[in-house]
This record gives sequence, C-alpha cells and structure tokens, in this order.
Amino acid sequence: MTDVHPPLPAVREVVARALAEDLGTLGDLTGSLIPVDVNVEARLVTREDGVLAGRLCAAETFAQVDPAVVLLWSADDGEDLEAGQALAAVEGPLASILIGERTALNLLCHLSGVASLTRRYVRAAAGKARIRDTRKTTPGLRALEKAAVRAGGGVNHRGSLADGILIKDNHLAGLSIETAVRRARLRWPGRSVQVECDTRAQLEEALAADADMVLLDNMSPADVAACVEHVAGRCLVEVSGGVTLDTAGAYADAGADLVSVGAITHSAPVLDIGLDLPRRD
Amino acid sequence: MTDVHPPLPAVREVVARALAEDLGTLGDLTGSLIPVDVNVEARLVTREDGVLAGRLCAAETFAQVDPAVVLLWSADDGEDLEAGQALAAVEGPLASILIGERTALNLLCHLSGVASLTRRYVRAAAGKARIRDTRKTTPGLRALEKAAVRAGGGVNHRGSLADGILIKDNHLAGLSIETAVRRARLRWPGRSVQVECDTRAQLEEALAADADMVLLDNMSPADVAACVEHVAGRCLVEVSGGVTLDTAGAYADAGADLVSVGAITHSAPVLDIGLDLPRRD
Amino acid sequence: MTDVHPPLPAVREVVARALAEDLGTLGDLTGSLIPVDVNVEARLVTREDGVLAGRLCAAETFAQVDPAVVLLWSADDGEDLEAGQALAAVEGPLASILIGERTALNLLCHLSGVASLTRRYVRAAAGKARIRDTRKTTPGLRALEKAAVRAGGGVNHRGSLADGILIKDNHLAGLSIETAVRRARLRWPGRSVQVECDTRAQLEEALAADADMVLLDNMSPADVAACVEHVAGRCLVEVSGGVTLDTAGAYADAGADLVSVGAITHSAPVLDIGLDLPRRD
Amino acid sequence: MTDVHPPLPAVREVVARALAEDLGTLGDLTGSLIPVDVNVEARLVTREDGVLAGRLCAAETFAQVDPAVVLLWSADDGEDLEAGQALAAVEGPLASILIGERTALNLLCHLSGVASLTRRYVRAAAGKARIRDTRKTTPGLRALEKAAVRAGGGVNHRGSLADGILIKDNHLAGLSIETAVRRARLRWPGRSVQVECDTRAQLEEALAADADMVLLDNMSPADVAACVEHVAGRCLVEVSGGVTLDTAGAYADAGADLVSVGAITHSAPVLDIGLDLPRRD
Amino acid sequence: MTDVHPPLPAVREVVARALAEDLGTLGDLTGSLIPVDVNVEARLVTREDGVLAGRLCAAETFAQVDPAVVLLWSADDGEDLEAGQALAAVEGPLASILIGERTALNLLCHLSGVASLTRRYVRAAAGKARIRDTRKTTPGLRALEKAAVRAGGGVNHRGSLADGILIKDNHLAGLSIETAVRRARLRWPGRSVQVECDTRAQLEEALAADADMVLLDNMSPADVAACVEHVAGRCLVEVSGGVTLDTAGAYADAGADLVSVGAITHSAPVLDIGLDLPRRD
Amino acid sequence: MTDVHPPLPAVREVVARALAEDLGTLGDLTGSLIPVDVNVEARLVTREDGVLAGRLCAAETFAQVDPAVVLLWSADDGEDLEAGQALAAVEGPLASILIGERTALNLLCHLSGVASLTRRYVRAAAGKARIRDTRKTTPGLRALEKAAVRAGGGVNHRGSLADGILIKDNHLAGLSIETAVRRARLRWPGRSVQVECDTRAQLEEALAADADMVLLDNMSPADVAACVEHVAGRCLVEVSGGVTLDTAGAYADAGADLVSVGAITHSAPVLDIGLDLPRRD
Repeated sequence: MTDVHPPLPAVREVVARALAEDLGTLGDLTGSLIPVDVNVEARLVTREDGVLAGRLCAAETFAQVDPAVVLLWSADDGEDLEAGQALAAVEGPLASILIGERTALNLLCHLSGVASLTRRYVRAAAGKARIRDTRKTTPGLRALEKAAVRAGGGVNHRGSLADGILIKDNHLAGLSIETAVRRARLRWPGRSVQVECDTRAQLEEALAADADMVLLDNMSPADVAACVEHVAGRCLVEVSGGVTLDTAGAYADAGADLVSVGAITHSAPVLDIGLDLPRRD
Repeated sequence: MTDVHPPLPAVREVVARALAEDLGTLGDLTGSLIPVDVNVEARLVTREDGVLAGRLCAAETFAQVDPAVVLLWSADDGEDLEAGQALAAVEGPLASILIGERTALNLLCHLSGVASLTRRYVRAAAGKARIRDTRKTTPGLRALEKAAVRAGGGVNHRGSLADGILIKDNHLAGLSIETAVRRARLRWPGRSVQVECDTRAQLEEALAADADMVLLDNMSPADVAACVEHVAGRCLVEVSGGVTLDTAGAYADAGADLVSVGAITHSAPVLDIGLDLPRRD
Repeated sequence: MTDVHPPLPAVREVVARALAEDLGTLGDLTGSLIPVDVNVEARLVTREDGVLAGRLCAAETFAQVDPAVVLLWSADDGEDLEAGQALAAVEGPLASILIGERTALNLLCHLSGVASLTRRYVRAAAGKARIRDTRKTTPGLRALEKAAVRAGGGVNHRGSLADGILIKDNHLAGLSIETAVRRARLRWPGRSVQVECDTRAQLEEALAADADMVLLDNMSPADVAACVEHVAGRCLVEVSGGVTLDTAGAYADAGADLVSVGAITHSAPVLDIGLDLPRRD
Repeated sequence: MTDVHPPLPAVREVVARALAEDLGTLGDLTGSLIPVDVNVEARLVTREDGVLAGRLCAAETFAQVDPAVVLLWSADDGEDLEAGQALAAVEGPLASILIGERTALNLLCHLSGVASLTRRYVRAAAGKARIRDTRKTTPGLRALEKAAVRAGGGVNHRGSLADGILIKDNHLAGLSIETAVRRARLRWPGRSVQVECDTRAQLEEALAADADMVLLDNMSPADVAACVEHVAGRCLVEVSGGVTLDTAGAYADAGADLVSVGAITHSAPVLDIGLDLPRRD
Repeated sequence: MTDVHPPLPAVREVVARALAEDLGTLGDLTGSLIPVDVNVEARLVTREDGVLAGRLCAAETFAQVDPAVVLLWSADDGEDLEAGQALAAVEGPLASILIGERTALNLLCHLSGVASLTRRYVRAAAGKARIRDTRKTTPGLRALEKAAVRAGGGVNHRGSLADGILIKDNHLAGLSIETAVRRARLRWPGRSVQVECDTRAQLEEALAADADMVLLDNMSPADVAACVEHVAGRCLVEVSGGVTLDTAGAYADAGADLVSVGAITHSAPVLDIGLDLPRRD
Repeated sequence: MTDVHPPLPAVREVVARALAEDLGTLGDLTGSLIPVDVNVEARLVTREDGVLAGRLCAAETFAQVDPAVVLLWSADDGEDLEAGQALAAVEGPLASILIGERTALNLLCHLSGVASLTRRYVRAAAGKARIRDTRKTTPGLRALEKAAVRAGGGVNHRGSLADGILIKDNHLAGLSIETAVRRARLRWPGRSVQVECDTRAQLEEALAADADMVLLDNMSPADVAACVEHVAGRCLVEVSGGVTLDTAGAYADAGADLVSVGAITHSAPVLDIGLDLPRRD
C-alpha cells in the first residue's frame, strides 16, 4: 500500500455503488446468454500512452462480481504506460468477466485519465513547481481522484472543507483578510492558513496578516513573478485560475511553489483502456 | 418534472454523499470564521456559453446544507446559456451558501458540461441522426449524466446491463451471433436485440438473425453508408467507435439512425459556472 | 400515530429502497412521454373486501417522488374495506403520480393483504384466542408486516431474535429444556421464556422448568385441549404448526391463548387495490 | 453463474439487511444459551414438492453470520424438488446455524415459492406461451424474485420503469396511443414499445402506431384468440389481467405469445423448507 | 461465538463507518510517509487493570484496512486483564497497522472501559444482585456496548423500545398503571411487563396490576428493603436511580434482584490500551 | 449556524441510525399503550450545571419521529447551564415524544457531557493555553463530539488522518524525524507538520527539521517549561499525555500553546438532562 492508492474502504464503497447501478434488478441480460462453462483468459490493455491509476478499483470490481475471476497485474498505479501494453491478465468465467468489464473500465479509464493529465502538467512544470489539484472533483469519487492525482505525480490540495483554511474572495463578503486570518489562528490553531489574492493589495494584506500560503488567482505569469519576488520566501506561493498545459510552464518559471489545476480532476478525458479477449477462429 | 431531469431520489442520494465527502467531520473551517448574521444575495452565473443541466442537484445541495438558503431560478435544464448569464439567485446566510457552493458547482459544472458537449454533437449531426450516449459514465453518477445527455438533446442507450441486449465482440468468445440472438428472443422475449458488427460479414449474420438494431463499430463513414444501403431499413443502424465532433456529421450524412458517443459522458470538460457575490466596498 | 402503524423511520427507508429499485438510472421512460402540465385527480380504490394497511407507506412514496402530489385519505390502517371503496384522493402531476403508482400499490396491496388475512384468522378464532404472527416475514419488510398484522387485529410474536426467548426443537440438539430455561433466567433475567413442546413429555419438562409460555407445535386440537387442561393456567399456551383458516377455530376452542400463524406474513395474497384515473372522453 | 441466479451484489445487500433486522442490538438471546463448542451437521430439507430458488441467499446468510458454517449443496436453483429431499448439508457451530436459520429459510422459502408457482403456470401453458412476471414484486426483493421467476421457467417483464416502455390505461389520461408511441420512438429510439389494450379499438390504434408488442388486458380467452388472429404476427401479443392456473392454459391456447401473471411474485405462498438437526438420544 | 460478543454484522457496520470517518478522502497522510516494505510485529497491551471487550471490533478493523495484517490473540472478551498484559500480536505492514490503530483502539478502549466498569459494579453487588444496563447507550454503538456489559458480567435490559414493556413515570401522563398493564397484556401477550415505581403507592398499584417486574426508582436502600419485603417474591425487583459504586452493595444487600446502572454505558471512562511497537535503536 | 454546531448532514445520519437502533422492528411497545389523542407540553431540563451541546441532534430526533412535535429552545450550544434550567419546551403527541425521548437525551447528555468537561479544562487552563481534543473519539460520533468540544470552548485537533500530519512515536519504527518531515514537505506541501517528542533529543530533531508544531508527550510541567523556553517561539508547542484537571493549569502555566486532552471525548461522563412532563393529579 503506497500513497498513490486510495483507502481500501473508499474503493469498496464506490465499486459496490457502481455495480448496483450497472446491474439493475435483472443483472446482465446479454451475459446470461453465454454458456456457464466458458472460461477465458482476457487482458486489460491500454490503447494509448498514459499513466495507470485505479488498479485497486478494477481488482475490487471483479472480486465483488465473482471471486472466481483472478487478476494478475503487470503494472501498478503511477507507472507510465505505452499504447498496446498489457496491464493485467483476467482469468475466469466469461460471463462474470463481462459483467464486471464496464464498471472496471469506467473506473480505470477515468482515474488513469486523471493521472495521465496530471503527469502532463507535471512535465510542463519541469520540476520547478508542484502541480496541485483542487476540490473541483467528481462528487462521490474524490478519494479516488485525489489518489489518481498523486499517481500522476501531483500533490493534493484540501481533501474536504474540514481539511485546511483557504480564505477566498467569496469569504471577503463577510470579513476582511486580516480579521479572517486572526480568527483562523484563534479558532483553528496549528493549521496552515492560505489566502486567495486577486490583487497586489490583497497580497499585501495577506502578508501583513502572516498567512502561511497565498493563492494568486487569475494573474499573468509576469504578475506572478513580481509577486513571488515581493513575497521573497515569506510564505508558500500557489497560483490558480485557468492554468493550461500551455501556460503551466510559464507559471512554474515565474517561481510559484505550487500550480493549482482544476482541470486535472474535473475535465480530464479518459485514458483508453480496453479488455481484450482471444478471438474465436 | 420533465424528462430532462434525473429522478429525485437519485439526486438526493448523490448530494448527500457529496456533502458528506466535502464536510468531513469538522465541517467548513473557513466558513466558520464568518459572522453568523451575514446574509447575502449571490448569483449562479455561467462564464461561458453552454447548456444547463443539474438544476435539481444544485437546489438539493443548498436544501440539505441549510433550509434557510433560498434559490430563485431563471433557467432550467436543457436551456442554451450565454456567457455571463445568471442562472439563479441564491439568498441566505453567507456561511451556509459557501458550505454548499463547491458541491453545487461541482455537480452543475460537470452535468452542464455533459449537456453542452452533447448539444455540440447534436448540432454536428444536423438532425440527420440522433446522438446517443453509452454506459461509459462516471461511476455513481449515471442517473445524473444520462439526464444531462437528454438535456443536451441526446438520447439514452442502456441505463444498465439489465436494460436491453447488446451482443458485443467480447460475447462472441462464447457464442455465435445467430445463437446469441436466438437465445435472447427465447429468454428475453419482447426486448429489442442489438448486435455489434465490426465487419460486413457480421452485419450479414446480424441481419440473418433478424436483429432489431445493429451497432457498426469502428467503420469509416463510407463503410457505414454502404452498410446502411445494404440494411435498407430492415433494422435501426447505430454507429460507434471514436466518433468526434469532426466526424459526427459525416456519420450522420452516411445515414446512420444513431451515433453513439462515449465522450459526451466520460470526457466532457466542465462548463464554467461560478457563484458571484456582491463585492464589499 | 397509533400502534397499527410501523415506525416512520422504517417506512422512509423501505420506500427509498423501493423507489431506487423501480427507477433505475433512467427513471420512468413511459411517464416521460406525458406532457409536464397534465394534472389529475386520481383515487386509490380497493377492488375487493379487506383490511387496509400501509397508508404511511403510500403517503411516503408520493412524498419522495414529488412533494407536489397531495393525498387526502378517507380510510386508515385497520379499517374494514368494501370492494369499490375509495381510500384516498391523489392529486398532482400525472407523470409524478404514475412514477409512484406501482411502488405505492406494491406496498399497499401486500400489507393490506397481510392485514386482511390476519383478520380472517382473527374472525375464525372468534375471540377465544389471539392470532399471533411469527418471524417468518419477508426480509426487509418485517417492521411493516408486523404492523399490518396489528392492523388486522393480530398480535406480534418476537420482532427479532433479540426480543424474547423461545427454546425450539433445534436448540435441544445442544441442551435440555431444564438447562435452557435455567440459563435463560440467569442470563436474561426479567424476560419471558417460551418453550416449544412437540410432545406431552416436553410439556412436562417445560412446566417443571417453570416456563412462562409454551408453544405446542404440530398437535391436533384434541391434543391441545388435553394439554391446556393439564397446564391449568400455570402458563400461557400458544399453538403452532400448520394452522389453517379451517382449523384455527378448533384450536381456539381447544383453549389455547394464542394461535400462531406463519402464513399471515409469508403467504398472504395481496389485496387488490388500484389507482383509478378519470377517463378521457 | 447462470441466469437463474440474482446478481451477487443484490444478494449481499438483501442478506445484510435481513440479518440486521433479525439480530436487533442483542443478537440471538436463545442461541446464547447453547454451549459454544456444540457443532452439528444439519440439513436443509424441503417438506413439499416444488422448485428451488434462493441458494445464493442461503449461502450468503450463513457466510455473513459465521464463516465457520460450511454448506454443501446437492441442488441448485431451477431444479424440481420432491418432498423430503435434502438440498444442502449445513455443518458448523450450532449457535451460528440457529442465528442464520430463520433468515436463510425466509429467503429460501419465499423465493422457492415464487419459482414453484411460476413453474405451475409454465406447465399450465404447456409450452404454447411463455409465462411472464410483472413489476408487482415485493419492495426491496425485486432482483431476487425476478431471478426466482427465471428459475421457475418464466421470463421477466421490465426490471424497472427505466427498462422498457409500456403505455398503460393510466397514461392515456395524458395522451393518445398514437402520440405516445410516436414520442417513444423519438425519445427512446431502439427500445421496444408495448401498448396495453383494453378494447379492440385500442388494439387497432396500437397496430396503426406500429407498436412492438401489445398487452391485451382483462379479455376473455375467446377475445384474445380473435385479437391474435387479427394481429396476425404483426407484433408480439401478451395477455394480462386476472390470469389463474385454471385459465392460463386457455390463454396460451388462444395464441398469446406471453401470459403475464402478477400473482407469481405478489401472492406466491412459500415452499415449506426446513432445517433438520440430528436428534439427541 | 459466545454471548459476550456482539453480532458480527453489527461489528462490520460500525467498523466500516468508523474507518470512513477517520480516513476522510485522502487517507492517512502521515502513514503515507512510511516506506511500503516496512513490516513490524506490534502488540496490543493494556496499560491498566480491567476487563477486555471489543476483540471482534479490533480484528475487523485491521481486516478492513488491509487483509495482510494478522492478529494473534492471547485474551478474549470477558477476561480480567492486568496492567502490562499483551492482548494480541499484530503483524504486518507498518503503514497499514498505523491506519487501523486509532479506530481499533477507540473501540477496544471504550468497550473494555464499559466491561471494566460493569465488573466493578458486579463485584460491588457481591453476587447478591445482578447488574443491569439501560437504554442510555451511545447512539450507534448499542449492540457493542450491550455485549461489553455482558463481557463485564452484567445483564442486559431492553435492547430497544421494541424489546419489552417498561411503564415509566412519563407514561403516566397518559394513563394509569392499572390501565397500562391491562392494555399491555392485551396487546402484547406473552411479554413481561415492568412498572417503574417512585412511591410505595405506585408499588401497590403495580402489584395489584400483577406486573412481572417493578423498577424501584430513586429510593434509598432502606426503602428498597422495605419494598422487597412487601413484594415478598411476587415479582422481580429492580432498582435504579443514581446507583454508584459506593451504594450498589447496599442496594444488593437490600434484596433487589437487579440493580440498574446507566453509568456503565453512558459514563464509563476508557480502559487505557495501547499499541506497542519495537523501538529502533 | 455557528461553528459550535456539527454539519447538518452528519446530524441527520447519526439520528437516523440511533432511531433505527432504538425502534427495532416493532417500535415502542410501551408507547403504543398511550391513547393517540394525548398531547402534552414537556420540558427538557438539566439536572446539573454544565454546558449545552447537541441541540441540533435533539431537534432532528423529534423531527424524524414525528413532525407534529414542536420544540421551542431557550438555550443554545455553548451556553452555561444551571441545574434546574429548562432548555426547551417540547409540545406534541405524548406517544411521539416518548419515542424520541431516549435518543434525544442520549445525544444531548453525551454531547453536553463532552462540552461540560471541555469547559472545565478550559477554565483550568485559565486562558494561558488552549484545550485541544484528539482523535480518541467515539466511533461514528466524531463530527458531533468535535463540535461539542468547540461548544465547550476547546479547539479541534485533526478531524481525520487525512487532516494534518502528526509524526508519532509509532511512525519512528519506519523512519527518522528528519526524513519524515522532509517527505511530508515534499508530498503534502502547504500542510502544517507536527512532531511528537518524548525526549529533549527528539525535540532537537524536530526543531532542526523545522516542524510547524511539536507535541511534547508525557513530560512533566517542569520539563515542558524547559522545552518551551528552548523552543523560544520557533514553533507552536502542544502537550499531551495524561493531562488531568489537576495538572492542566500547570501545563498551561508552563507556556504550552495547546494542551491536548483525550479524556474530553473518550471519558466524559454525561450531563444529566431529563424530560419533564406535567404530573397528573
């Protein structure tokens, strides 16, 4: 168990829900047409380059469908994959394998898509800044998507609202930066406090309030570079707001410690992984 | 209640799960800094053109967080939106609104993303073919994503494995097309039977077996046109396999009744919708 | 809230599960064809004589489907119904009413079936013995079925294994009646102890052990009468084992305090209740 | 895994719920009186002729109660059983076996009851028509009851509202048959459309609208025969409405393809199956 | 499986909930820093004298976290423990053991705390009266706490409101003791009926009504002795109301059959149990 | 909604579970004896001094039992209470109030017990240090107990393992302090890192590694004072390990910023709150 995998209890719950959703009350109508005694050895194969994530989910899916299905993995979460590469052998009753196929692939393709896009951003940042996710995750899948981000080489922002203080523009309808940080220190001592800054003036306020981290939102790389110079190491600097693969490098070059990208969880296209069966002659 | 909305019970369950995930055991640390008596009138605003979906989800989110939050909607699922358009007014305690903000937006942005991409495919098909989704949905969100597809103007393929018969290549490791269709008629009378065909030979088999619908997989528009001509109305024709916005029109022109696009659910980027609060002066 | 209704939390949970089961991921395909603005006033009507049970379930069903559906009840659980009698008016959007119809009726018909069969047994016993249910209930519906038995005029046996001590034949593979009763007094003081007796010898053992109640199993009415005379009021006497509507009266006449009938929960045919809509002309 | 078994995930969930219901917070009071080291070999035995269904449920029950209980099956779902026939050996700690006994039997007896009644209808139809179930199932048990119908030799109607289009009398309060079918083709292409017909006029409408299947409701066998002749193979014909074991044969003789019987799920009496333990001497 | 353990299904559910609560969406941040290949042999050790309870819970916790963690127990629920005594060896991956540590200990320490306090009361009563718990348990943990009471040597009062009749002072706002007992006999025949008595007058009423058990509430030991003499074995006598370790003996000496103590479940301090790992040098 | 309340979704879930546990399948046997038309006005009254917590829980309990029960609160979470003080008026059907009574009180008494003990520690620290809770909470109730700690004036430590980094003695079986902190900065940038120190040597290591906070474990107040002096403001200092009401003041005087007390959640005795009904004459 490494830190690129989600907690097993979360995996179990997501898979149970996904299977319930896909089996309805009648189960697999089409699979019921297959003779019970047909066993096959299939393979999970990626059809494009990318990064694997979701191995525990795929394993759990087949385990919940039918313990007679056995998986032998040849890759693990976080590994670079090449198009055509086999990820696992899947042996067992054909009908059971087909029942689990779509659920396993939906999880594997989505999570590997998240990991793969994350890694592209990580490479764009060229080691100068870390790529960080957001809370803009798919409802119900946060534990899995956050693990996929780690598998891709990114780091995790808050896992929930309970998991760190981030004073954003919308909070400022209710209080000032200075008041917010002071209250945070009082009510939640020992937690790091981050302040979103849209302007240089807000950055000044955040620094004066002794924030642990600032989030420079919707600034150009040049503005970020100026802010980083001004911060001069007094706190961590994260940038956010419409960062793309094209601009991530520039933000990293600008000296930000962290580059926040919502798209790696909310808009990652799937990685195309399929289940290959031997052809009949 | 129109057919572009998901069933309410599914909405309630997804929202409860999403809130539990985002609140952890401590709730919103940052929101706790805001004075209890601050009330605001915020607005849900789309920042780009697209199609709305997920209104029931956003409404349910705020209802579960705090019944004192009131929403007044000015748009409904399925409507075309223009960048800058307000979707709803959100009035109530600022802290409660911020607790629900991310969950509501995660659902709204993702589902509107699905609806928006669906509509782009619908427009590409120019009324000559219907755009249909697949079972390649996000685990746990199928009911919501399938409704979003309908909101975008698409139609739904199977909702689950229990919901129609589709004989795919992987089933043919266990039995022939002819046997499969015959058994399907016997065991599941009254259900329409669709057969995936990768080749002209398989199409012949499917027609001979009197399938109700064929799924031409990974064929070029030209091959599809030839198949459609050959089928000559004997059954519905659906095409699938790597259809893109660029090629959807060609497949529709080729005479397919339905064009199946997995990407509208598994790879739709979010629609950028935000929550705007009045600025303090 | 009278004692003929099940606990509300149990009702909510059963209804949520039943609706999820019936709505799948796509909801009501057929209902989606109905124009949204069609409102109707329907009526729940019994098509045969019987006893009502399940009113809270039907109400909760429509409430969960669509709060805009309003029910006005003219009968309550436990009431005798005559064929053709209206139980409730159901007003609201036609599509919503049809979504809830089957789930509401499945609960209403099954539970009223339980109540109706119970009452037939109650009448057969003619007030000389009470009719009691068993733990032979439908998995997942025990709270509802036990309430329906009360609505029918019966009384409840154990609600669960945790809810009273009944030493049955199968326990005697592990210990004697005397040991069992003594241990029960020691470990579970203050709880009434019932002993199943298949023979006169076992009855002697049970009486000697000072059981609070005996369960005479698979005896003829004549044997029961003899046992009752022998017991002479020293403990309550219940009979069980293949009691039918034809024999219930004889067992009651034989002097049993309670007549146990598994069939009232496990084999009750439904009461035929339907939803009537006004016809179009 | 054949098509006569329900999906394993559904089995797990039903059993967990049933055990929670039967164990309460204190567990089995009576079983707690039995010495821990008493092991037995019991047998599941049917006390009457019938058809087995629910084997996975019984197995899952004992597995959830205590993995030390081992079952060895000598019959499978769908098999004809004779009174007195042993279905399985159940070995393990007596206390654990008694904890699971009632839950296992409740599922086994109810589901075998459904399978047994189904088979009686199947035999009454003498191979001339298929027996089909309805959505009139026990809330929470649909997946299990539908599998039991298949075990009995019947076929399944819709598994949920999401699983096929059936335009019934109550929909006609909102729209005409012609409109309904046309909309169904438009909104749910590729799905078979069935129309309930109470009269010859409605049958004409349904045929004119090119329905895939009609449901002749509450007609006499003679009327059905006339309708079948009129339909002349243009679509499948199903009959429903108060079909009994006495009349099922006549409807099959009348030429219906399918005979729909709600009673096989909503009013099937249990099959009497018990757990036999060796007697002490 | 003895009667000092809670039902396994309840254990599974509590543990799954507790782990979900403690893992959030990101899992164990700190544990993720530990190299994957570090395996240890740790020990569960009690740091103070007491009584063990919760073994199944601790075992289930590690099983749900990682099946590679193996526990070897050297003590069982109900055993007296001495400070420093090892309860179990815990072998496996260090990271997995640390993930489960807190949840396992929270359950073990709380439940052993309940068992230990129970035993102190049991010893105070010196075998003259039984110590009984109440329904004043921690919400969600009743099955586990009631088993811990049994492990401590106590006996269980009602497991739920459905599990026995106890007419308390607050019911008397609605009806008299005589009416209440009469109705209880009528509606719930075969169940033992207990009446709470605050005064000698109420005791008279309860005896006149032929209650099976009385609950003498908030009386002095002397008053209890007088009441016991007056009851003269006509029914079981339980005392309740602020019984402490100092007074429990006096109430037992006064002749009460049962002494009811809410504190053993609602206010038991934890038993200090820890997880010891071998130190690095 | 202030920060002394738990998130509403957590409240709903705990209450639903608690009611299910207490109602079993038969509901309240004793309450069923009360005439349906008896309405009362009861009062929640504290019988001892303390601090209120759990108001939302009590409100939710009665709302789930019967919407006809109305509560009017005269106190809120976090308020000091005096023995005899009324907290709320509870009006409605007597039977419904009695069904909810125990569940509402179990939550109210336990959570107010947590808040009350917390406040005693807060007062013992006399404003010189903050009192902080731990993860030693009751499984399933963490959200509620953590809120009760806040109501008592304490502050919250981690809400879950996902919610901050705390390198404890048991992690040091796998890695050094220096390595652990360095990895934490790398993998979880932006999160504060706390290191448990049992010795002065470990404190040196932690300071050298630039930890954000140290946890001085099992040191005497004098040792803590020496450590605080040595730290000299370089990081926050928390103390833990067997802190009692007697020693909390000394630790606060020693200069610790935070004093961690597990007992406020794991061993808080209940606050005695009762439901008073008007007496009949």
